[in-house]
Amino acid sequence: MSTELRTKERPLQTYRVAIAGLGNVGRATANLLLSRRERYRQVYGADVRLVAACGSRSGLRDENGLEANSLGSLEEGLSGPDFIAASSADILIEAGPSDFRTGGPGLAYISLSLSAGRDTIVISKGALVHSGRQLRELAQNSGAMLKLSGAAAAALPTIDLVDHSLKGCKVLRVEGILNATTNYLLDAMMARGIGFDVALREAQLGGFAEADPRNDTQGWDTACKLLILANFGLGANLTMDDLTVEGMQSVTGDRIEAWRSEGLVPKLVGSLTRVDGTFHAGVGIRIYPLADPFANIRGKDKAIRIVTDAMGETIAIGSGKEPLATAAAALKDLEHILTARAAEHVSK
Amino acid sequence: MSTELRTKERPLQTYRVAIAGLGNVGRATANLLLSRRERYRQVYGADVRLVAACGSRSGLRDENGLEANSLGSLEEGLSGPDFIAASSADILIEAGPSDFRTGGPGLAYISLSLSAGRDTIVISKGALVHSGRQLRELAQNSGAMLKLSGAAAAALPTIDLVDHSLKGCKVLRVEGILNATTNYLLDAMMARGIGFDVALREAQLGGFAEADPRNDTQGWDTACKLLILANFGLGANLTMDDLTVEGMQSVTGDRIEAWRSEGLVPKLVGSLTRVDGTFHAGVGIRIYPLADPFANIRGKDKAIRIVTDAMGETIAIGSGKEPLATAAAALKDLEHILTARAAEHVSK
Repeated sequence: MSTELRTKERPLQTYRVAIAGLGNVGRATANLLLSRRERYRQVYGADVRLVAACGSRSGLRDENGLEANSLGSLEEGLSGPDFIAASSADILIEAGPSDFRTGGPGLAYISLSLSAGRDTIVISKGALVHSGRQLRELAQNSGAMLKLSGAAAAALPTIDLVDHSLKGCKVLRVEGILNATTNYLLDAMMARGIGFDVALREAQLGGFAEADPRNDTQGWDTACKLLILANFGLGANLTMDDLTVEGMQSVTGDRIEAWRSEGLVPKLVGSLTRVDGTFHAGVGIRIYPLADPFANIRGKDKAIRIVTDAMGETIAIGSGKEPLATAAAALKDLEHILTARAAEHVSK
Repeated sequence: MSTELRTKERPLQTYRVAIAGLGNVGRATANLLLSRRERYRQVYGADVRLVAACGSRSGLRDENGLEANSLGSLEEGLSGPDFIAASSADILIEAGPSDFRTGGPGLAYISLSLSAGRDTIVISKGALVHSGRQLRELAQNSGAMLKLSGAAAAALPTIDLVDHSLKGCKVLRVEGILNATTNYLLDAMMARGIGFDVALREAQLGGFAEADPRNDTQGWDTACKLLILANFGLGANLTMDDLTVEGMQSVTGDRIEAWRSEGLVPKLVGSLTRVDGTFHAGVGIRIYPLADPFANIRGKDKAIRIVTDAMGETIAIGSGKEPLATAAAALKDLEHILTARAAEHVSK
């Protein structure tokens, strides 16, 4: 509150933002950012400009700031980490495709950006899972801020909770419904007593599951988010090999029927447990009684339960609509960067 | 993460803390603070000392820092805002009794502390409800930080959510189960089909409700927390007169029976709705279907639901044990102050 008022009368500080990745989420992020420029001025005394944006093959650049309508006509060839580096961006928002086995295209964008001291907001998970420690070190060495709410279950507060709301407490256990597609499938199966194959086919026809759904249904997406939370939120140092990852393929119509008759609800859950100072992590199906808040996480909602030494159990449930909710998560990171950078300007 | 490592090698910065109010919560806060001194050193490069502590009539002071065992023997007469002012404290934690009709004893402590530029962490609600705007202005004028997680439903993240996790989003609606005693009573009534009077008598005998329970059962405690959230978290400017406050006295055994047969659950809820840019607030009984997470908030747990433009619905549920959870909420505020003040030292 006091920050909001204190910065108002200062001269505007310019922040130049670039966005790498112009799929649904990248475009939603660009549009939301442009729609909030007046807010940035008023609250942070910040003139926020979108100076560059690119997809995998084409992009645009304008030092004075792009407008929403210009994103309709990209120029071939204006793309890649060097294209971003040559723009005058102070802040990169990375929103490309995710591949945790290689780091994906995001890895090169993020590495170069952090090395150059550019504050970096990451939405895709791949690079963070593949090279998290190196990226953290790059940021520490250059003094750049590395933010990743969009990659850690987006609108559901996860890293935020441990890093801000539960600050000072020791996290003992974490349990999360972190993948929307599998929650949607399990919810549909429970509602109608159908098995995995039938539910998946229906969801694919309806556009709620991908043609190759394995990243979701085999638990890898949940595992990625869990690992990012552990490594970036809880100071762990896990790799994918440290996790036991089981998906939801084993959930048959018969098992669904049996659970339902007992008042139980299955969920695909990622969990972390601290044992002797080390976190053990896994992904698999867990069963909850109806009175557990986790049993009532519907459709594409997500949830997390965090148990700490001093604050007991804290649960968060998120149900934002995509891609807007993920865009808003990335731009929450942007405001945290503006807050921190503005504080530096004030005290200089 | 990067802050945690960056500050490690800097010389220790001393922070002198005073605590006003030595009931259960004040003492739990003192003990938790003293038990975390090594953490403050390691994470913030901060030498945090408890230099003064007082109840309503007696207290203690030691510039080199009090220890937990010394709080057993207080000296008569060492108490009051001037006692704290004379103590060299940089930070005040106020944990006294709450009275929203007068501001309570906390008002004088908090006013003097903020006027003197001392960062102030408030746990009791009374002064914030009674004189919120004046206290905010005192803080702005002196540059002191005013933090109040402990007064806004404590371990349940409320202000944190709107101020950090949902940053940038416009809050459209808030709904909260913010009072533990009434949730405990309603939960007991639902579990056994008994009416308000019977449940209250049982709870009083068991020590779960106060001899004069009206502050809780008539909705005033919920109203205080709601008003603090609105004014300090959402920039509203409400007074108690702006709120419609109804308690739970009207909940009879018959109504409980009827709700139960329909699969509905009553909760005492505080709610805020934004209409044309203005928040309308009220407290009263609301009814939820079993599938709503609010229907499953048990015993002394609390919950909040926040609806925003860009992130949809976010729910948090908290179930920390008192007085530890409230102490931890106040010391979360302390860490946020240490983070902000450390950043200022770094950039100087």
